[in-house]
Amino acid sequence: MGGGSLNVFSARHLLVASLALNASLLFRVYIGGFSPALDLLSLCSLSVSKGFEAAAPDADAAASPAAVSVLASSSKTAEHRLVDHGRIINLDHGDPTMYEKFWQGTGDRATIVIPGWQSTSYFSDPGNLCWFLEPELGRQIVRLHGIVGNAVTDGRHIVVGTGSTQLFLAVLYALCPQNVTDPVSVVSMAPFYSSYPTTTDCLRSGLYRWAGDAASFDGGDGPFVELVTSPNNPDGFLRDPVVNRSGGVLVHDFAYYWPQYTAMTSPPADHDITLFTVSKSTGHAGIRIGWALVKDADVARKMTKFIELNSIGVSKDSQLRAAKIMKVVSDAEEEGSNQGDAPPAAAHSLFEFGFENMEERWRLLREAVKQSGLFSLPDYPAQFCNFNRRSFGNQPAFAWLKCEGEIEDCEGFFREKKILTRSGVHFGDSPKYVRISMLDRDDNYLAFIKRLRSL
Amino acid sequence: MGGGSLNVFSARHLLVASLALNASLLFRVYIGGFSPALDLLSLCSLSVSKGFEAAAPDADAAASPAAVSVLASSSKTAEHRLVDHGRIINLDHGDPTMYEKFWQGTGDRATIVIPGWQSTSYFSDPGNLCWFLEPELGRQIVRLHGIVGNAVTDGRHIVVGTGSTQLFLAVLYALCPQNVTDPVSVVSMAPFYSSYPTTTDCLRSGLYRWAGDAASFDGGDGPFVELVTSPNNPDGFLRDPVVNRSGGVLVHDFAYYWPQYTAMTSPPADHDITLFTVSKSTGHAGIRIGWALVKDADVARKMTKFIELNSIGVSKDSQLRAAKIMKVVSDAEEEGSNQGDAPPAAAHSLFEFGFENMEERWRLLREAVKQSGLFSLPDYPAQFCNFNRRSFGNQPAFAWLKCEGEIEDCEGFFREKKILTRSGVHFGDSPKYVRISMLDRDDNYLAFIKRLRSL
Repeated sequence: MGGGSLNVFSARHLLVASLALNASLLFRVYIGGFSPALDLLSLCSLSVSKGFEAAAPDADAAASPAAVSVLASSSKTAEHRLVDHGRIINLDHGDPTMYEKFWQGTGDRATIVIPGWQSTSYFSDPGNLCWFLEPELGRQIVRLHGIVGNAVTDGRHIVVGTGSTQLFLAVLYALCPQNVTDPVSVVSMAPFYSSYPTTTDCLRSGLYRWAGDAASFDGGDGPFVELVTSPNNPDGFLRDPVVNRSGGVLVHDFAYYWPQYTAMTSPPADHDITLFTVSKSTGHAGIRIGWALVKDADVARKMTKFIELNSIGVSKDSQLRAAKIMKVVSDAEEEGSNQGDAPPAAAHSLFEFGFENMEERWRLLREAVKQSGLFSLPDYPAQFCNFNRRSFGNQPAFAWLKCEGEIEDCEGFFREKKILTRSGVHFGDSPKYVRISMLDRDDNYLAFIKRLRSL
Repeated sequence: MGGGSLNVFSARHLLVASLALNASLLFRVYIGGFSPALDLLSLCSLSVSKGFEAAAPDADAAASPAAVSVLASSSKTAEHRLVDHGRIINLDHGDPTMYEKFWQGTGDRATIVIPGWQSTSYFSDPGNLCWFLEPELGRQIVRLHGIVGNAVTDGRHIVVGTGSTQLFLAVLYALCPQNVTDPVSVVSMAPFYSSYPTTTDCLRSGLYRWAGDAASFDGGDGPFVELVTSPNNPDGFLRDPVVNRSGGVLVHDFAYYWPQYTAMTSPPADHDITLFTVSKSTGHAGIRIGWALVKDADVARKMTKFIELNSIGVSKDSQLRAAKIMKVVSDAEEEGSNQGDAPPAAAHSLFEFGFENMEERWRLLREAVKQSGLFSLPDYPAQFCNFNRRSFGNQPAFAWLKCEGEIEDCEGFFREKKILTRSGVHFGDSPKYVRISMLDRDDNYLAFIKRLRSL
């Protein structure tokens, strides 16, 4: 790319980044929905104008393609540049905008062009059990799992969904017979993902119902579904099933089972039903693509049926985009592995970018927490990763932070400091805990660290 | 565009059309799902190889950009060229592939380019009630309704969904309180869209349940939701509500309320909740985008909440594509209206393309039906259309065909002739009726007409 076009490219990116920042700030200010327990409007009036002043300069800089570098190399400088007028820092959601910077650095390699005449049919692959799966997405899913080594794909049916949330509902539909007298119990060990109870129970289905903490589950001898989220949302630990009796079906939610968050150990995961999503692997939450690897053809067929009844398939455009994005990720890994023993560059390897950012963010967080003396964080045992050849403890996408001492309402404590987190109570745990997103853009994350240090 | 690139363009299109045709034929042969009552596998073995021979030549020709012309101008020639080796003709689904030809003719005007760094956030418009609605899509929806004159958008909230199916479920969630003792009754006058009962009842919700034909509904004095589909799927008639008592909420499904199918009369539709979709308006079924115009903010908010619980929003890529496609449609209409009184060309106006194709397809069908003496079709009264300044009767996206005389199982009758249709029983009506898609590609539709004439 010549200098001229680079300038144009940068200018356009800066403009876009600036507009994105405006949107991001509006979000922080006016956010509605998606946050069952927070009433933010009362808070927002505090800082609407200040918020705009605060973060704009740094975010512009961070969004330039030339600035693709891990947080580690520049975090102290960037952090000192931040002007914090007491704006609201929202780390309640798991918005994976950290990854935007990586993708800006890939230029047009991950760009997709879709002509107007595409997608007049509902069907993508009529010969396939999942007739709305784009074949190229299926191929790239198999390829990526093969390269990363996080899941067995041989002998599996792939069912694509509008994010893994729709797949979770599809699994429940597929596993719970239409003619049950009592709804099948759905359980997961606390702390569990805060959306499981609401998503399961929102329609008061006669097929299934949320039955709470798997560790204390006593559903007699009836059938049950146990959700095993590993690494777990919110606390980041690797997990195994905990209900110790027969009659249950396991569903593995592996949204975070990628080498930027946890070590890939051998053999690859080999479960009956495993859910993945691009939201937390490549960082593309807005394209709403998830996939399930399913051993049993009947289960895969019923999941497909559910998605037909729920939305007559899944966006072809987003499937094609996900396939392109995965291809760029896999191509870079294969090119990197051809270069011999040198570690891949974070500018080219998504997983290296993610790993280095998560490592640095966790280092900064642990330092700040130690300095404050008010909080504690989980410790994760180190494991050797077959993928990146490092030994490391989990560096999860969320921090599961505990307020020590006399602070009983940890979310309330942070809200007073204008830091929005999600209380442990939404995860079936104590209000002394909060979940904090570790995947926000640099400016927001660094502002959080700075404010934490000032407590 | 120069001659050289046109050649390349045509060649690429031919290749793509050919591949698409293979997919289409595979679909006809191996189709699974999406067709609750048909077991096609037993039929498929009859014609798998013959099918490939039969339709390929004509479909290639039809898919070239140079061939963008209405069916009317070439249908007799094209029909004579068809070699019908007795392949299966599948008109069971409403796959709107007829529109592919129009979009091939628009060149790159409707092409969208999405860089890899877009869509790392779940949020599209955090300040909006529907926080996952792309603002540009919202603008183009308002603009298109304004140009066509089919619905009032002032004072409405727009909720976007993964197709109108997800919006239908969102409406039920929004209208039925969580604390009801008995599920709210959901009704629609027979014949009704065959997916309403299965989609409503698939999870055995405690909030709502399918209660059948609105014309014979006797739900005491309990609350109810009446679905008013106009023009109706399957029979194509315009409809008003039929339940004659209070306590109900009306939901207008206006998927087919566009000027290629029915006259736009004044004033524009002005209902509390109205559902639309690009699938049947622009023909892009595979992008899965629908939208609701909703008067009441609380209803719109609850619908938004449902889509959050169901899929955490809607594909941004498909929203951006839908916006681009609508923009091309509206731009062409505005350019056409600046040219004075001359009718717009079908190569530029989507609605003119759709109108002329539907007019010709209905003419051919009525001729063939008259010639056979075996069937009958509904008659639709003519109305003056404010949009295209013509007076015409409905020319629906489905034919609701009745087998006269002694043929009791109309679907079975057609299945023997290797024509796949959907029986009236799925629509709450008699098996003497079948629903036949009028929106398939030229080659398939003309093969159907030819076979009908040979009966």
